[in-house]
Amino acid sequence: MKIIKNGYVTTPKGFKAGGYACGIKKDGLDLGMIYSEVPSATAIMATTNIVKAAPIVWCKKVMINPMKQAVIVNSGNANACTGEQGMNNVLSTAKSVGETLGIDPESVLVASTGVIGVPLPVDNILSGIKALIPNLGFSQEDGLSAAQAILTTDTVIKTIAVEIELQGVKVKIGGMAKGSGMIHPNMATMLSFVTTDAAIEADVLQNLLKETTLDSYNMISVDGDTSTNDMVTVLANGMAGNITLTEKTPDYEIFKEAFDYVHKTLAKKIIRDGEGATKFMEVKVRGAKTKDDARILAKSVVTSSLVKTAMFGEDANWGRVLCALGYSGAPFDPQKVSLVFSSQAGMITLLNDGVPITFDEDEAKKVLSETDITMTVELQEGDEKAVAWGCDLSYDYVKINGDYRS
Amino acid sequence: MKIIKNGYVTTPKGFKAGGYACGIKKDGLDLGMIYSEVPSATAIMATTNIVKAAPIVWCKKVMINPMKQAVIVNSGNANACTGEQGMNNVLSTAKSVGETLGIDPESVLVASTGVIGVPLPVDNILSGIKALIPNLGFSQEDGLSAAQAILTTDTVIKTIAVEIELQGVKVKIGGMAKGSGMIHPNMATMLSFVTTDAAIEADVLQNLLKETTLDSYNMISVDGDTSTNDMVTVLANGMAGNITLTEKTPDYEIFKEAFDYVHKTLAKKIIRDGEGATKFMEVKVRGAKTKDDARILAKSVVTSSLVKTAMFGEDANWGRVLCALGYSGAPFDPQKVSLVFSSQAGMITLLNDGVPITFDEDEAKKVLSETDITMTVELQEGDEKAVAWGCDLSYDYVKINGDYRS
Repeated sequence: MKIIKNGYVTTPKGFKAGGYACGIKKDGLDLGMIYSEVPSATAIMATTNIVKAAPIVWCKKVMINPMKQAVIVNSGNANACTGEQGMNNVLSTAKSVGETLGIDPESVLVASTGVIGVPLPVDNILSGIKALIPNLGFSQEDGLSAAQAILTTDTVIKTIAVEIELQGVKVKIGGMAKGSGMIHPNMATMLSFVTTDAAIEADVLQNLLKETTLDSYNMISVDGDTSTNDMVTVLANGMAGNITLTEKTPDYEIFKEAFDYVHKTLAKKIIRDGEGATKFMEVKVRGAKTKDDARILAKSVVTSSLVKTAMFGEDANWGRVLCALGYSGAPFDPQKVSLVFSSQAGMITLLNDGVPITFDEDEAKKVLSETDITMTVELQEGDEKAVAWGCDLSYDYVKINGDYRS
Repeated sequence: MKIIKNGYVTTPKGFKAGGYACGIKKDGLDLGMIYSEVPSATAIMATTNIVKAAPIVWCKKVMINPMKQAVIVNSGNANACTGEQGMNNVLSTAKSVGETLGIDPESVLVASTGVIGVPLPVDNILSGIKALIPNLGFSQEDGLSAAQAILTTDTVIKTIAVEIELQGVKVKIGGMAKGSGMIHPNMATMLSFVTTDAAIEADVLQNLLKETTLDSYNMISVDGDTSTNDMVTVLANGMAGNITLTEKTPDYEIFKEAFDYVHKTLAKKIIRDGEGATKFMEVKVRGAKTKDDARILAKSVVTSSLVKTAMFGEDANWGRVLCALGYSGAPFDPQKVSLVFSSQAGMITLLNDGVPITFDEDEAKKVLSETDITMTVELQEGDEKAVAWGCDLSYDYVKINGDYRS
């Protein structure tokens, strides 16, 4: 697998993209698009929140036919809790994109992100579409522009592209995502868009995405809040010319590995840019009885406000990690747990087979003063493992969210 | 029911209390006791966290016999994740109290609160016991002293006492509690100690406490973290001389009402003094299909970091309330929801039958600038309701917990 420098959703063959400032946000790009020259096998995972934004309702509805050709995304307004008008606005958006491109509106996916409960300024979007579509392109700049247009409180773009070879055919996968608050995906994610020129059956793609999501987006948390607008979308247009992939195709595992890598990378980029984050926390749980237990335990630690504030304070208050494991709901024997904190600066063992180990506070401070901190939990209950990613809880998280709408 | 001014655990007949500075905390009282002149019918509810502090393990063990006579509590150290030595330290503590008072060590409940994973300085406690017990007393000052000794990051004591009349006999209930971080009780609470001179069957008391806990301590959250040391204890010594209470006793409902009031008051006092809290948030969910749904929904809103930061910022970002209801796990139809924010300064309707209502931002700011904010959610799904209490998430929460151990 080759990682492509400056890779975007436009990196795979046949995908155009672009961004435009239509005036929903005070300034900056706020309307992004991806367009495939040919219909693409498409998979989506969407939020499990009962309160679903109008675009989520639309996407779920039109996915009866998994061949899609375009995705339109606005930032600055979530079009959630907006009633019937919200649904009408999605319909007008899809219709306008379809007409302008000369494709079926039902082959257009719509996504929104931003403030909840404010009517969508649909006129801005409709005139934005007319301006944006003629300028879509295949270049890196076009991919970058789309990646910028989907951001809200994010401070950096999140993009990735990789190349693999399947039976001698070069296949590319590119992606872009946005965070960076209300991040605690559950069977879904914040907005993430992945393109690939691989040929793959739509149902195979959907199963693969579902599986990948469990160990990527579903293992991150910024603040424990599962959004109304979470969605991850993959469009596969087949233009690489490989033999259409199914689980039985030779080299399917190569594709799967690259696909996993792309999604995990985007998930981790969301965490690195979590609202107010100053630290990136990786929690590895090993020796769990079941995979599910491992996931639940790891996720519980990265979600704990007390673990997160301790990380912000660079304080080795490891009892909070044990506490978060203990209330996670997954069973284990506290007497068998070992816990290690590590970073570039070294490692400290806090607990060994349930027994607290006296550690040097200066050494601990050195380890925790790094930006990337790993916590490794060994349970000795079985052979399953999982990794979760989170960030610290800082003054800036409170600042950003105390006054989000103004 | 009469609320007694300056009421403490010493208010009911026959209960002595006191506090002492034994040197676990840098300064201030850190060892508290309650002693009943006669054995008391006792009920406890303890944390559901798998990682249980040593004193919790002790209390669960000795509750095979529900007649107890003393409670000893230290603050500054949780005696959790402390291995076998932690259990030995609890045993020495109970033994020392038992010997000094001339009672069975198994009739002594032990509780601890403070940092996790640091060995308990048991010598301080043992010499503290010798100094404290001769000075226990029945006065308000003694009750106050005990209430002070159990605090950690709390900024104020949490106490309450009430008086009722059962068949002409005056009965009192007194209580004290401590918060104020790692507060997200689950079938339990942070430390709360309630005394009553009522005569009541131990199993009736236990059932009553279990029921009361569901709508008091279990409905509060400061930070979503369920502690390793949560415990609520009630001692009923029968010295009021009322006819022993069972569910069938006349006036049982009067006792139940006063009992509920005491526990809800303590739970709310914990929230008012939540770490860094500047706001007190009451979330009422009405018209739920089941009582459990109502509780889950209300609790989800007070736990949401995004709702809490919006309250801190006095921002009517009501979409976050809908979002938190939506991911709670309890089913409802978003199209039927109504939502109102209110305070002393007035009220604003945000959502009516699922339709967003345009509101005046200045009016909203006025309502949210008060300290006590009520959010009322009407679901139109059934007749059940619940109330949860929470606080905002402020810079000070991050500050307090970024550097808790130093």
